[in-house]
Amino acid sequence: MEIQIAVAKTNKYDSLESGDTLETVERPNGGISVVLSDGQFSGREAKSISSMVVRKAISLLAEGVRDGAAARAASDFLFTEKFGQVSAYLNILSADIQTGTIVITRNNPTPIFVVQRERIECLTSDSPAIGKSRNVRPDISEIPLETGTTVVMYTDGLLKCGNDIGESLDIRTLLESLLEEQEPAPQEIADTILAEAIRLDQYRPNDDMSVVVLCVTAHETDQVRRMVVRLPVLGQKVSQQ
Amino acid sequence: MEIQIAVAKTNKYDSLESGDTLETVERPNGGISVVLSDGQFSGREAKSISSMVVRKAISLLAEGVRDGAAARAASDFLFTEKFGQVSAYLNILSADIQTGTIVITRNNPTPIFVVQRERIECLTSDSPAIGKSRNVRPDISEIPLETGTTVVMYTDGLLKCGNDIGESLDIRTLLESLLEEQEPAPQEIADTILAEAIRLDQYRPNDDMSVVVLCVTAHETDQVRRMVVRLPVLGQKVSQQ
Repeated sequence: MEIQIAVAKTNKYDSLESGDTLETVERPNGGISVVLSDGQFSGREAKSISSMVVRKAISLLAEGVRDGAAARAASDFLFTEKFGQVSAYLNILSADIQTGTIVITRNNPTPIFVVQRERIECLTSDSPAIGKSRNVRPDISEIPLETGTTVVMYTDGLLKCGNDIGESLDIRTLLESLLEEQEPAPQEIADTILAEAIRLDQYRPNDDMSVVVLCVTAHETDQVRRMVVRLPVLGQKVSQQ
Repeated sequence: MEIQIAVAKTNKYDSLESGDTLETVERPNGGISVVLSDGQFSGREAKSISSMVVRKAISLLAEGVRDGAAARAASDFLFTEKFGQVSAYLNILSADIQTGTIVITRNNPTPIFVVQRERIECLTSDSPAIGKSRNVRPDISEIPLETGTTVVMYTDGLLKCGNDIGESLDIRTLLESLLEEQEPAPQEIADTILAEAIRLDQYRPNDDMSVVVLCVTAHETDQVRRMVVRLPVLGQKVSQQ
């Protein structure tokens, strides 16, 4: 069995900085977590908020703190640091080998798609952003870590895309057609969804956009862990600074 | 221009836990860092040491602390926590967009290969492990962040492989032959080096092994950041716990 996670992420058009922050961390008792936060506003301010939230959650997860407790801690931390004036969305997606489950923690009204046993479910339950009040609770779903599972998590830039031309992104249909293929690579799923969102915003994204896809495959593996990160650099950005 | 980082990592034979810890983090002023630590001993104890070291370095880098300062802090922290009784190797490899440089920070005698302008250099200067004394200084190299650069960093499991059969891994020759191809993917470079090391240990690695490859390509990009993580899971490991 192999757990595969792919990410595709782009900035709002003409914005050098994405307000979305995403980091992965190895779980000390086995497995991996992806933490995704979308800060209020966009650009530098949003980035500073979302990275503060992600850093807090990541450092707790790395110490073995459970996902729900890490989300609550990040919420209280943001509330305290910013005096309840600033909000952020926070999602934690974990493949927990110790419990043999996938844990999905949401402080984000943006839906998450879960495909298991060939059924597509959509987690849409109400889930408040963190930072604006005390005692914010995350919405937590736990499902078995089994082959054939696909989870698609994304930021609200993908919910709003296409507004200008009166269209919207139909992730469910896109996902259904992708899953008709024999085991599509998670990077292909993430890339296809993001490309469609960018197209609907007429190639000038109105907001930062991030897509995370987790797949559990039956893959016969060689017991080698692998990671690839690809970071495009604008030529002028290097020389400007 | 695109910065690409690939990792391939395996455990010592018959060991469920790798003593090597590797994490990546986005640099708050632009770019990415990879932090790699190899803890003394192997298995659970080594893992706890290396992950403590990596967590400290990552959290400082995420706050904008410079690489050298983060390495020194991790060293002092390990010395204090473990009363100078335990050592660890630490490497930080950063693509720093703000300064337009690649920064290589070593507290690890294991060499690092740097290919730039078609010349292969090998960083071998003496560089002490952290944790056993105060005032441990890292060895820091800074090179321009330019296309055609390849950096290969690895843990000492790859230095020692093949000992049992009187052979050793010749990374320079392997790298030369890989670079004869037109822009080999960094994952291909990492996989090839790791596979050769595993073969030299007769498919039963005598130590944990990690290889990190950073390439800077001229790639025309679509301004999408991408990441893929692949984590093999032993079937019994899920059910055992």
